[in-house]
This record gives sequence, structure tokens and C-alpha cells, in this order.
Amino acid sequence: MGDTTDELVDLASQVAPIPSGRELDMLLTAGERISMSLLAMAIKAMGVEARSYTGSQAGMATDARHGSARIVEVNPRRIREAIEAGAIAIVAGFQGFNRGTGDITTLGRGGSDTTAVALAAALGAEVCEIYTDVDGVYTADPRIVPRARKIDRVSSEEMLELAAAGSKVLYIRAVEYGRRHGVTIHVRSSFSNKEGTLVLNGQNGETVEEAMIAGIAVDLGEAKITVVGVPDVPGKAADIFNLVATTEANIDMIVQNVSAAETGLTDISFTLPMADGPRVVQTLQGAQAELGFESIQYDDQIGKLALVGAGMRTNSGVSAKLFTALFDAGINIEMISTSEIRISVVTRADTIQDAVRAVHTAFELDADDDAVVYAGTGR
Amino acid sequence: MGDTTDELVDLASQVAPIPSGRELDMLLTAGERISMSLLAMAIKAMGVEARSYTGSQAGMATDARHGSARIVEVNPRRIREAIEAGAIAIVAGFQGFNRGTGDITTLGRGGSDTTAVALAAALGAEVCEIYTDVDGVYTADPRIVPRARKIDRVSSEEMLELAAAGSKVLYIRAVEYGRRHGVTIHVRSSFSNKEGTLVLNGQNGETVEEAMIAGIAVDLGEAKITVVGVPDVPGKAADIFNLVATTEANIDMIVQNVSAAETGLTDISFTLPMADGPRVVQTLQGAQAELGFESIQYDDQIGKLALVGAGMRTNSGVSAKLFTALFDAGINIEMISTSEIRISVVTRADTIQDAVRAVHTAFELDADDDAVVYAGTGR
Repeated sequence: MGDTTDELVDLASQVAPIPSGRELDMLLTAGERISMSLLAMAIKAMGVEARSYTGSQAGMATDARHGSARIVEVNPRRIREAIEAGAIAIVAGFQGFNRGTGDITTLGRGGSDTTAVALAAALGAEVCEIYTDVDGVYTADPRIVPRARKIDRVSSEEMLELAAAGSKVLYIRAVEYGRRHGVTIHVRSSFSNKEGTLVLNGQNGETVEEAMIAGIAVDLGEAKITVVGVPDVPGKAADIFNLVATTEANIDMIVQNVSAAETGLTDISFTLPMADGPRVVQTLQGAQAELGFESIQYDDQIGKLALVGAGMRTNSGVSAKLFTALFDAGINIEMISTSEIRISVVTRADTIQDAVRAVHTAFELDADDDAVVYAGTGR
Repeated sequence: MGDTTDELVDLASQVAPIPSGRELDMLLTAGERISMSLLAMAIKAMGVEARSYTGSQAGMATDARHGSARIVEVNPRRIREAIEAGAIAIVAGFQGFNRGTGDITTLGRGGSDTTAVALAAALGAEVCEIYTDVDGVYTADPRIVPRARKIDRVSSEEMLELAAAGSKVLYIRAVEYGRRHGVTIHVRSSFSNKEGTLVLNGQNGETVEEAMIAGIAVDLGEAKITVVGVPDVPGKAADIFNLVATTEANIDMIVQNVSAAETGLTDISFTLPMADGPRVVQTLQGAQAELGFESIQYDDQIGKLALVGAGMRTNSGVSAKLFTALFDAGINIEMISTSEIRISVVTRADTIQDAVRAVHTAFELDADDDAVVYAGTGR
């Protein structure tokens, strides 16, 4: 049923240039409704009791933001009843309802994983298993680094950084929900019975040995915008990013160069999802006179590499080791940004694969054998 | 979106030989969900506020019979609010929910018309307009009788008899609901602004002039089963029809011949929807020893013609006129059944078109001009 949602979105765009959010949510929830009732039928045909539930039947109350609703409360009374009756409960992911308006809502990006984690939290489940087309979370993308190793246990904090840095295995939102509500997430493969990766949050006394590096994430989906020749006066950067915020683009890394003393001008660079790029460039260009910069440079040939590990906190020299590995591999670093447990660097897109392999080896993450890669491409 | 439901039923049959009624209802309600949200988007794109509502959002409470649920209560609070706010409310037909289980239900055959009439009743609407692909209710099917006339006003009682006798314009269930709740139904065309047919129920002081004949309905979808050589003893007919009832077939006309004195045996004939025929024949044959009849005859080459009119009550000679018209046209009558405002006869299927034309003319129903027939084939 994978294409259903795309087909429904296509139908909507045929009847209305900008479909109403309320109606789009009503439309899009039809897809999961079809999948889940067919799944229940198929399981029942195998002789096991199964019952499907919509988001509202499962008690998934959200706010009223159509298309990107936030869960405000989960009351899974009917799900608990079904489980107590020995039935398999199948719940439509990605959807909920707003109690005030009575309207159907969708959770947006990452909504299905979030539904699962939220239900697990509300039911007090021991673990929330999320089945995907990879064996779990790897130290790096096995399609780029054949010697990548599956991570057995990772802290939710590290998982959040990996997801934020481009790892596609779990959505940030689901990890964040799990972290806040103390849900252990088990990411595993639909194609095998092997243990996958446990994402732990420390709330059940489970701890993750603090490896220096948990993994390396790569993101080729960002672009870089440089605002050249910005007057280096207080409040100018704020003006620029307030304007960018009106486009609702998600800014990732920001770097401001040191001002050249003789001109009083500086450059500000930032990265953002490639899809948002043209819109932001257009908005900035429209305000050139007002903001007083010289020009805009747009570059969608960048790659981002992020090294994540809670052990960084107590291990010095991680940055130095990273920069050395990249230098040895002949790779130029264009931007750097760090958090407590992450170091991200931007390089040319066409060097990113060499970069991640070099860093993986330098931090002794390589496995003895090549990883098994399934046909799927992650999510 | 016309084929969606068929496609969903097909998907269900691929995963389960006998899909669960609860899950099938969950699945089938996806179709109207798609149509109604797209419709709302399209109307909004034209600049008019429109909102779509599922059966449960529209307060359509039903019993728990999945696939053929009955409406038990309608609480259209949200629909009233939408209308009061100046919006067009679009309600998914054919669906509701059961308050006890919280499950989604579908109303089955004729469910969409019934939803419309039930909503009109609950909202206290002046009239429920039902748009179809014909101009209204005709004195006979214009594809068979080119001189058929559109009926301007018909009583719900007559409409019920016409629907029961095979007129496809409105479902019995919707007419019956309208009659019980005093809803005036206006059947009209989606393709023109012409007045269609008003189905009146006398509750608003509206009356229909009692024409002797309102119309003639034809049904080619029935078959006749004759149980030959049944012992003419008390209770035997009851035994047969109790057995037939276990198959859930809808029996229409029943005729029992006069017993032949010398043998003490009689024949019992009845008509039923063709689709039910083989099942009923098989059930009867399985009980031949127990019921003690000689043989079963099955005949699916019959046609049924029904003359309907409230004026029959006060006009004698209607039967005689009908039989004379058929005799003059050389058509043999095989079965007869009557109600207070209807006379039905069964003839050979291949003579039914001549029969209805002859009767239409004999009762002076012919219009001056041929009726306009659209490409659609009714419902």
C-alpha cells in the first residue's frame, strides 16, 4: 500500500492548489485505514483475533495543527481492552484527533514511529519494537561503509544526535518522545529475528557503556547559503535569521566569519534542507536593500558528516583526531559545528563517502566483516 | 471515485476468504472519506467554505450489525454548527458508528440515500434532495417505454411499492425512513435544474391527487422456484418457508396452486432475487426426503410487472383492465399477487417489454413526446 498516500496527495493537488489542512488530514488518514483493516483481515484469516483502530479510537488526542499535530494525551482504553481479550490491536499510525474541534489530525513527518512510541508510553510497555528494513542502527551507513557495525545499545541522547545529523533509521520526534516518557525503543528488521538496536533512556536503570563514538551520520540533503558582505553591526544576524524564520525553513549549522577589520563587513553561512533553499534565497534577495549585504551564494553540493558519542564528554582529543583523519584523506573542511556529544563538519558532497570511511577507520569502528545490506533504502 | 469501493472489496478478498465484518466496514468507509475530503477541497478552491464529516462526526449512531447496520439515533450537532457558520457540510453516506462498541459500521444497500434522509429528518429540513442520473421517477422505465411520463408528485406509500417492485430510482429503505420521519424527498437530476419528483408523506399537509395509476415497475432480476408435488397437509408450506428463511433469501411473490383432489399433492411457487436462487434450490434439495416433495423446478427467465397506484383503492376494475391489456398483447400471465395499491404479474422475461408498453398505453399513461433518457442507467 506504499504509494497510496502519494496518490491521495496527487488527487488533492488536482482539485485544489492549496488544499485545506483539515480536509487533507481527512483524506490522508484514508490510507492507513485501508492498510490496517486489510492487515487485521489477513491476521484473522490465519486464525488469530486482530482488531484495527483509528487514531481517535486509540485515544490519540492531539492539538489542532493539521498536518503537523502534536500529541497532547493518549488514552488507549480500547487498545488495553483488546490486548486483555487476547487480540492483536492494530493502530493507525500518523493520525489523531483534536478534542476541541472533533477533527481528524495527522502528525506529519515521523508520525508513525511517534504513534508507536506514544502508545508504548501510555500502555506502560516494556519496550516499543519498531520494525524497519535494516537490522538496526549502524556506526555508519553500511551502503557507504561496508565495515559498519550494528550498534547493540545506544543512549537516546546519542540517537537524537544521530537522527538530527541525518541517520534515517528513526525519526528525531519518536526518539525525543521516548526519551521524555522513558520508553525503551528496539529498532529491528522486518526480515529477520535478530536482535536490533536498543535505544535506552536510562530511566529503567539501563545504562549504555559510554563508547567514545557511537556512530557517524551523513547527510547529503542539505544546501549552504552564504550571505556575503554583511555590515558587522549588532543585530544584523538577528535581522537575517528573523527573516529566514518567516519562510519556516529549518536552519541547521550557522557559521559567522571573523569580520575583516578594514571593511567592517562579514559573511554569514548556514545550512538548511535542500528543498527549502530556493525559497530562502528568494526571500533574502527580496530584502537585500534593507539588510545591506553584498550578495548571496547558494551551494547544494555539500555533504555533512557528524560524529556522535556520549563518551566525547570525558574523552579529549576527539576533534583533533577527526580533523587529522580528514586531512590525511585529503578532504577539506568548510564548516564546523559542535554540541556536547557531537561534532559536525561540512565538506564537498563528492568527498563525503571517502570522508566517512576514513573517519570510521580512524576511530576503530570497523567490523571484521562487511555488513549485510538489504535491498531497502532505509526510510 | 466510483470504482474505489469495488477495488477495496477486491483487496479484502485477496487477504481473507471471509473478511471480518468489523474490518470490512473499517476498510469500506475509506472510500467515502477520500471522495468527501476531495469534494470539500474542490468547493473551498472555488471560494466557498466547505467541511467534510464522517458518519460518526455527523452523529450517525447505528446498531452493531456490520455491513447492514440500522440507524438508531442521529445527533447532527456538528452539521448544524457548520451550516449555522455558513459552511457547506459534506457528510459521508453509508456509514455510522455503534455507541456501545465504538466501532465503525456501514449501512449496506441503499445506505447513502438513507443517510441523506436520516440527516434531513434530524435537522428538520424542509426537503431532502437526492440527485441522480435521471430526471425523477417515471410512470415506467423510459428505456423500455419511450412515452413514459415523469411523475411530479407521488405518495411515499406508492413510492415504496414502486421501489419494492423493481424501480431503481430510490431505495426502499430511504423511502421508508422518509415516510416514518415525515421527510419530503425530491428526486432530481444531477444534469439539469428541472424539478424532479416529490415523494410526499402527507405529514406536512401535502397530498397527492390519487391518480388511479402512479406508475409501472419492471423487474427482470428475479427467478421462480416451484416445489412440485408437496403433500397438501397443514404446516407443510410453513416447513418449506422456514427452511428457505435459513438461507436469508428475500422471498417476493408466493403462489400455492389448488390441490389436485385425487393425489393430495400441491405445487408451491415463489420468486426471489436471481442471486439467491441456486443457494435456495440446493438447500431445498438437501431436505427433499424430510419435506416429501417430488421435485424442484428453477426458472430464471421470468419478468415481473407491477402496477402501482393509491387510486386503486377507490377504483374497481383495475385488475380486469390489466389482464385484458396483457391478453390483447398476447402475453401469458404465470403468477399474480396483489396488495392494496399494487398488482404484480409474472410473465416470460422476453415478453416483459411488450407487456409494460401495452399496459402503459391501456392505462392512458403515455406522454405526447418521448422522454429524455440520459446515458446513465439509474442505480
